[in-house]
Amino acid sequence: MTDPLRLGIAGLGTVGVGVVKIVQRQANLLAQRCGRPVEITAVSARSKGKDRGVNLSRYAWEDDPVALARRADVDVFVELMGGSDGPAKAATEAAIAAGKDVVTANKAMLALHGQALAEAAEAKGLVLRFEAAVAGGIPVIKALTEGLAGNAIGRVMGVMNGTCNYILTRMDSAGLSYEEAFAEADGLGYLEADPTLDVGGIDAAHKLTLLAAIAYGAKVNFDAIQLEGIGSITIEDIRRAGDMGYKIKLLGVAQMTGRGLEQRMSPCLVPATSPLGQLEGGTNMVVIEGDSVGQIVLRGAGAGEGPTASAVMSDVCDIARGIRVPTFGRPATSLDDAAPASAASPACYYLRMELADKPGALAKVATVLGEAGISIDRMRQYDHPGANAPVLIVTHKTARPNLDTALAALPGTGVLNGAPVALRIEEV
Amino acid sequence: MTDPLRLGIAGLGTVGVGVVKIVQRQANLLAQRCGRPVEITAVSARSKGKDRGVNLSRYAWEDDPVALARRADVDVFVELMGGSDGPAKAATEAAIAAGKDVVTANKAMLALHGQALAEAAEAKGLVLRFEAAVAGGIPVIKALTEGLAGNAIGRVMGVMNGTCNYILTRMDSAGLSYEEAFAEADGLGYLEADPTLDVGGIDAAHKLTLLAAIAYGAKVNFDAIQLEGIGSITIEDIRRAGDMGYKIKLLGVAQMTGRGLEQRMSPCLVPATSPLGQLEGGTNMVVIEGDSVGQIVLRGAGAGEGPTASAVMSDVCDIARGIRVPTFGRPATSLDDAAPASAASPACYYLRMELADKPGALAKVATVLGEAGISIDRMRQYDHPGANAPVLIVTHKTARPNLDTALAALPGTGVLNGAPVALRIEEV
Repeated sequence: MTDPLRLGIAGLGTVGVGVVKIVQRQANLLAQRCGRPVEITAVSARSKGKDRGVNLSRYAWEDDPVALARRADVDVFVELMGGSDGPAKAATEAAIAAGKDVVTANKAMLALHGQALAEAAEAKGLVLRFEAAVAGGIPVIKALTEGLAGNAIGRVMGVMNGTCNYILTRMDSAGLSYEEAFAEADGLGYLEADPTLDVGGIDAAHKLTLLAAIAYGAKVNFDAIQLEGIGSITIEDIRRAGDMGYKIKLLGVAQMTGRGLEQRMSPCLVPATSPLGQLEGGTNMVVIEGDSVGQIVLRGAGAGEGPTASAVMSDVCDIARGIRVPTFGRPATSLDDAAPASAASPACYYLRMELADKPGALAKVATVLGEAGISIDRMRQYDHPGANAPVLIVTHKTARPNLDTALAALPGTGVLNGAPVALRIEEV
Repeated sequence: MTDPLRLGIAGLGTVGVGVVKIVQRQANLLAQRCGRPVEITAVSARSKGKDRGVNLSRYAWEDDPVALARRADVDVFVELMGGSDGPAKAATEAAIAAGKDVVTANKAMLALHGQALAEAAEAKGLVLRFEAAVAGGIPVIKALTEGLAGNAIGRVMGVMNGTCNYILTRMDSAGLSYEEAFAEADGLGYLEADPTLDVGGIDAAHKLTLLAAIAYGAKVNFDAIQLEGIGSITIEDIRRAGDMGYKIKLLGVAQMTGRGLEQRMSPCLVPATSPLGQLEGGTNMVVIEGDSVGQIVLRGAGAGEGPTASAVMSDVCDIARGIRVPTFGRPATSLDDAAPASAASPACYYLRMELADKPGALAKVATVLGEAGISIDRMRQYDHPGANAPVLIVTHKTARPNLDTALAALPGTGVLNGAPVALRIEEV
């Protein structure tokens, strides 16, 4: 039997403890599959005394993750502390400087510093892997980087924040308001300490930009993402979208277009009968479209101790087996500065507005849309007890600037009560 | 730039031509991702003169695939001829003997000879890879072998024959008889030359046994599969199952139990709202359950030029990148002779029978079930214009031998018209 692979684990929260459990419980299985034992030699976390429900007594303890990263008895530095900067970044840099391979679950750090870290690792012949950073237990980084390596990628899409999908699902299934569903998710401990990371779409956007880098050979460019959270979604939109055969999801989409690399994270309508439309609760889904393979759908738990630790172990086993792939699937120095797309690609849109119930109101709206070059696919006006008539419009495919022109002109008609709601309908 | 990886492709049918197209169309992309060019140096097929719609003029031609496999200018022998024995096996053996890595899409050859071929390859330090042999373009071999390497696998399940799923879907959606749907699939060219490979479940069973070998570290044992095709499924069962909230799928299931390794390929009921239940048409789906990751669902095209060639290229890119994993995820010589399970694990069953419309008939059936230790979860008797009443029963979970006892005793009640239909309900 060859030498064991020795892990140093920094961060003993949910995921770190999950990794310790797998290494302990599956020691035989890991040795068989990897051809060598996988061991933990040292760990680091904020509080040494805390009872984490696992036996850590056989591992060396380091208070300082940087010291852990530099230990001579560590082959792989496993970064599970989180945070885009601070100790996680310092320790990752120290590990690379000390010649260690790195496995991380840290989407924020990679979304902001992935290019520099990957270049540093690859300059020293090291690997920096991050399966656990995207879509939890779903082996999507491996699928995209290796499994679909023969494909030019059309779109990569995904529902990658389970908390948002839980909130939207509960609004739909239980008729809760956004505020009620948010409070329920909070009570269940689903929200990050800063909930805007979840409901603002930032966490999911971190993941999307990592997928985009692999798919299109582009440098990670988090700032280029068109980002919109779910805070403005109402139960009424969920109901009306349902009437038209759609579900509302916080959907990330990356695609390379003639106008540049498009990266969007925003609430979208998807057909209720599609795999994305059928995705309920905290589960994640990633859809990858390749020019040869067509559409591949991957679904699984996007968070939690076991699933995320499973993804960490996928990277660990790769390193133990001698599988060494560049962070973004090709040398980091060869990644392009892809120009961001100036606008989202054309799409059908869902429009909801309240019209004054007087003759010619609808005609004025239709005129504004027509003058902006937008044609109407379907329109529905609902019963209304009050003075304002709820009206839904599904447009034919239109360019986003046309839609923005129309949205800017609609208030001038004087027939709308409040601002219209406009949501993209993503073809999936 | 390092040396190109040189492919010799044997078999220029749909998949072989698909691989040629990818290598030609994506030459730059492959070189970027693999860190070296991927080239074809020689090809072999039955008919040299045939127009295949691709330019083969730059490749050496071999009439004999064995000669191709031995060429000095071939690094990887790509076997796309098919057939469990004959030229495919001879050429694969020749390639291994000549020190070539092998990529194959040949599920039948691997299901019958995979153990010997993997041992031969690994004894020489070669790899024998087969992503394209299971579920077409879905990168399921990679997901199971590498992406979920940290998991003890509970069950592996899948709908892995698109033709059967097409037939069952068309029976359901268009109200066709089995014979009509079969004829339609035949007219569309979906059926193998020997259609029992499809509708008899053999093709899907080949795939299942390969997944089982990886999941459980067991030698491939195709003969141990409990195999049942879809030929006896009627439109009435599809309708009745639908009434109870189920879809009927040709479902493969492998799981390690206390009674040994269970491998089943048979028509099963699954909840209509589950991902497997929602799978329509020719698409494939594989569901993998791991002790840490929970349930992972993979969905995509199970056949066709592009998807299958995409999977072949996944293996080719792995080899080009220096990724070398044993065929079944651990050394072939270390695989166990797993004892086959003597009976399927306990399950709920769907029973359909026609009862004589006379007092006490249902009581007699219930008595037989009760005496066999089977309790009834749900029962439904339908309107009936004739003398016989259609009756559906969903049982509570029961051992298969109990069910067999009941099925053997039911005719003796004298109240049944014809034989009862019994289908397993798989919890998914």
